[in-house]
Amino acid sequence: MKVAILGPRGTYAEMAARSQFGKAEEMVPYPMITDAVEAVAKDKVAVAVVPVESLRDGSVGETLDALAWLNVKIKGEVVVPITHSLLGVAGAKIEKITQVLSHPQALAQCRDFLHKNLQKVEMIEMTSTAKAAEQVAKLKQPHMAAIGPKTLSELYGLKVLKDEIQAGELNITRFFCVAKDDNKPTGHDKTSIVFYTAEDRPGILHEILGEFAARNINLTKIESRPSKRVLGDYLFFIDFEGHHEDARQREALDAIKKKVAMLKVLGSYPKKF
Amino acid sequence: MKVAILGPRGTYAEMAARSQFGKAEEMVPYPMITDAVEAVAKDKVAVAVVPVESLRDGSVGETLDALAWLNVKIKGEVVVPITHSLLGVAGAKIEKITQVLSHPQALAQCRDFLHKNLQKVEMIEMTSTAKAAEQVAKLKQPHMAAIGPKTLSELYGLKVLKDEIQAGELNITRFFCVAKDDNKPTGHDKTSIVFYTAEDRPGILHEILGEFAARNINLTKIESRPSKRVLGDYLFFIDFEGHHEDARQREALDAIKKKVAMLKVLGSYPKKF
Repeated sequence: MKVAILGPRGTYAEMAARSQFGKAEEMVPYPMITDAVEAVAKDKVAVAVVPVESLRDGSVGETLDALAWLNVKIKGEVVVPITHSLLGVAGAKIEKITQVLSHPQALAQCRDFLHKNLQKVEMIEMTSTAKAAEQVAKLKQPHMAAIGPKTLSELYGLKVLKDEIQAGELNITRFFCVAKDDNKPTGHDKTSIVFYTAEDRPGILHEILGEFAARNINLTKIESRPSKRVLGDYLFFIDFEGHHEDARQREALDAIKKKVAMLKVLGSYPKKF
Repeated sequence: MKVAILGPRGTYAEMAARSQFGKAEEMVPYPMITDAVEAVAKDKVAVAVVPVESLRDGSVGETLDALAWLNVKIKGEVVVPITHSLLGVAGAKIEKITQVLSHPQALAQCRDFLHKNLQKVEMIEMTSTAKAAEQVAKLKQPHMAAIGPKTLSELYGLKVLKDEIQAGELNITRFFCVAKDDNKPTGHDKTSIVFYTAEDRPGILHEILGEFAARNINLTKIESRPSKRVLGDYLFFIDFEGHHEDARQREALDAIKKKVAMLKVLGSYPKKF
């Protein structure tokens, strides 16, 4: 089975995909989220694993848009903790490192460690942690190190100089597994929907949430997002507990359909958190 | 007056700040959004201009977190259209360009132009459009070009080889001007709040939105965001029409305060869209 992932090999997207589909599957990296999701829509791959939200950075707009407009369904969610390691070539020593390469956000997350242990180090910003590891592996300089997930060390033949160097704050990224069909009911599910209300009047969102409240359905996420047609014109993304084939959930969705201009069930999948 | 902006000089944040505060003010660049907002909280600058949402990428989580937890207020909103130019050194000719440097998203937005006009060009990813322009200016190679806002050409002494090269799709970024105090009522305002409900029960959000609906107050944005304490535990960010000192708005906020564990008015400011 082919699995589409975002970006170069060895990123957190690949870790999420491996945790879900094991080591045997073939990973196909795509440069953009939309490309990875499109590969599912066009039957080039069976599934795509794309980031949807992180504790640090919030929702990933490109993923929400791709789900809203492309012919795919959410089949599962995966949660991956973000931990960083300092990676160098064979023979590198932590006290001799003078240049550290990584994505700006990874550098920021490891600022405390760098301040304490490598005070005069030069930080070089790269577009991804994987690109940083690739560069360090290519140049083979013992004074250079990359910051990124530990798994990059295997992929690029680097040594882990120091583990878990990110600041104490919890950081976690949530991924969606996207396929042509969503998951069957398991009794412990979550459903994601998107809708669009043609009318912009006070109370319309309140009315729609009332359909969930009246049926005792818990919402786990809500987000409005510019529709890209007119600024100030919004799509609403809602996650709620239960499967869209469950009785109460189906009733609520039927009631909401009558109130909105567009409603799409993005998929139901086993609840992971 | 000192104005904190995100990132290197010449980015869209600086354009937003200039459009609001004119050319005379001193711009102080900060590497991270949190640093720029903290500079306001610590009275190092009078105001910070930070991105809060873009049509393409959705909300900027770091900005929402900084507003929720730091002692600052939103004083204004600015909307900046994102348009890209192809920039080269003096003597560069568009048909001779073989390397294009930019942020991955800017490269993606200009993919159609590059495909049509520079088919064999090598794309080099940088962490920002400003860093790309800086690099092209530094290396002085006529075969290299950067993609970014036109204003980078003045800042780095580059020539505009071609204007408006982004794909047709509308792209706009919304910025907040953040200061110690928010704006007085103007009669045409918007207010941003954040709140946290200690209880996770179906219908609590519906009840809270009911306080706005009952008073005919239009919501312009709603977003839940992980609270960073426990995954699945959410802060809610809502924008609504009117000033927090207006009678109906004040009533609604008083009613909501009784239902939630925490409510912070992030600021009221003149509505720009």
